[in-house]
Amino acid sequence: MFEQLGLIGCGLMGGSFALALKRAGLVKRVVGYSKSPSTTEKARQMGVIDLAAPSALLAVAGADIVIVAVPVSATEATLKAIKHLVTPDMLIMDVGSTKTDVVQAARTALRDQIGSFVPAHPIAGKEVSGIEHADADLYKGRQVILTPLEKTLTAHLQKAATVWTAIGSQVIHMSPEQHDAAFAAVSHLPHLLAFAFINGIASQPAGDDYMALGGPGFRDFTRIAASDPKVWRDIMLANREELLAQSKLFQQALHNIEQAMEKGNAQALEDMLTLASETRAHWRMGAKRK
Amino acid sequence: MFEQLGLIGCGLMGGSFALALKRAGLVKRVVGYSKSPSTTEKARQMGVIDLAAPSALLAVAGADIVIVAVPVSATEATLKAIKHLVTPDMLIMDVGSTKTDVVQAARTALRDQIGSFVPAHPIAGKEVSGIEHADADLYKGRQVILTPLEKTLTAHLQKAATVWTAIGSQVIHMSPEQHDAAFAAVSHLPHLLAFAFINGIASQPAGDDYMALGGPGFRDFTRIAASDPKVWRDIMLANREELLAQSKLFQQALHNIEQAMEKGNAQALEDMLTLASETRAHWRMGAKRK
Repeated sequence: MFEQLGLIGCGLMGGSFALALKRAGLVKRVVGYSKSPSTTEKARQMGVIDLAAPSALLAVAGADIVIVAVPVSATEATLKAIKHLVTPDMLIMDVGSTKTDVVQAARTALRDQIGSFVPAHPIAGKEVSGIEHADADLYKGRQVILTPLEKTLTAHLQKAATVWTAIGSQVIHMSPEQHDAAFAAVSHLPHLLAFAFINGIASQPAGDDYMALGGPGFRDFTRIAASDPKVWRDIMLANREELLAQSKLFQQALHNIEQAMEKGNAQALEDMLTLASETRAHWRMGAKRK
Repeated sequence: MFEQLGLIGCGLMGGSFALALKRAGLVKRVVGYSKSPSTTEKARQMGVIDLAAPSALLAVAGADIVIVAVPVSATEATLKAIKHLVTPDMLIMDVGSTKTDVVQAARTALRDQIGSFVPAHPIAGKEVSGIEHADADLYKGRQVILTPLEKTLTAHLQKAATVWTAIGSQVIHMSPEQHDAAFAAVSHLPHLLAFAFINGIASQPAGDDYMALGGPGFRDFTRIAASDPKVWRDIMLANREELLAQSKLFQQALHNIEQAMEKGNAQALEDMLTLASETRAHWRMGAKRK
């Protein structure tokens, strides 16, 4: 399907995408670039990429598909760096967790070549990062949100949908704004809360002793608190308005439960816990949206 | 080791304890009682208990070990109901997630027989409840906290430790107060936050659509929000002071992160996320306390 994938950013997300395309026979060769030469070299040794490029621009040279898998704050500089070699036939995607800022960065950086860009957010990840955790199955069975701009070429949007579908993902289309509102709620807020929860315990003299008693509930609730701090710093800053709005709604719900506790209002407390428990018990990952 | 286990409350926790003792060959027969006769009957059909008792008192008759596995708010009434048949040779334990209230209830209910009581909290559970989920392996590899009273007989405390060790648990001794402070932090607070998080999303018109986009992070972070509302109502009321204190510390940590977001202070934000990420990355379930 493709001759050459240009991979910019040899980390968990980009590396997994390259492996998935290779395994599915969708690409003949992968040319990769990372800011750190040793990371690029590791990706080559692992067989994630076939050739190491000394710059982002050279990773794009001759590619018919490009994936930009860098922290969202580096998107604009990266797209600017490759702009001169972008052609109308080239499909360019990102994998960022926020979309309005990425779309803005792409408009600024790509200008007349913006039609090649299909913003993408695969709902997949691990609490560990780095090329050594790259996994051809990372996107299998996962949702991928595409948030095209008005100027995105239809042919590229269709090609993007075909690629993700071919590696096992379920493609959903949304506007960048819809995307950021939804993910503030279901992804960015849980990360914010998990980070704050760990810091709240760590701030106490007995914090280490307390954490030593954590069981399976603690383990699962806090898993995402081990996520990459730089990646999440960028996401939280990029989507801060939606995230702060979601945090306010959360704090209101928390306040309601705490009030019932303080007043000893067992029935009101049980009603609120029942709403949460039943809502969560009926949830299924990847269920079709209404 | 034991002739007869009296099981009061045929649910996930009690049923799993009975199955574990049976499999380890630690008990000859199990006599069980549940508030709901159909639950008791189900436990009998499943082989969790050998005989169904028509009352808590009769479940205790002739037992040399008794496990009280009822919601913590029912502990006092349950212990009062069995008091007349409690003997000094009988080991009685509970499995409640809070301990100062259970200890108070036991003092009030058991009076001169209090020496038989060893308060226990196994750090195990599932987000599903009910005898149908009982599992002989539930306590294997898990920590169990014993919080003896001053009047607890040493022989019973040792027997309790031996039983839990024999079914694969790691026994830890703490005071009831230490226990409740620690578990407010690592168990009760995560549940409170997970319940509030789901309710915050459910309160929005687009909440269902948002949740349909939740991925693995959402799944793990919210798993405990599906927990039994009645059980958690009781825990939150019983340990409300410690829990509200922990929630305050959490809210301070959340406020700190949000302030860095609002001010666009990327370095402060990254520092706080790094603290959380490194703390969580180094955590291991069941690691020895310092």
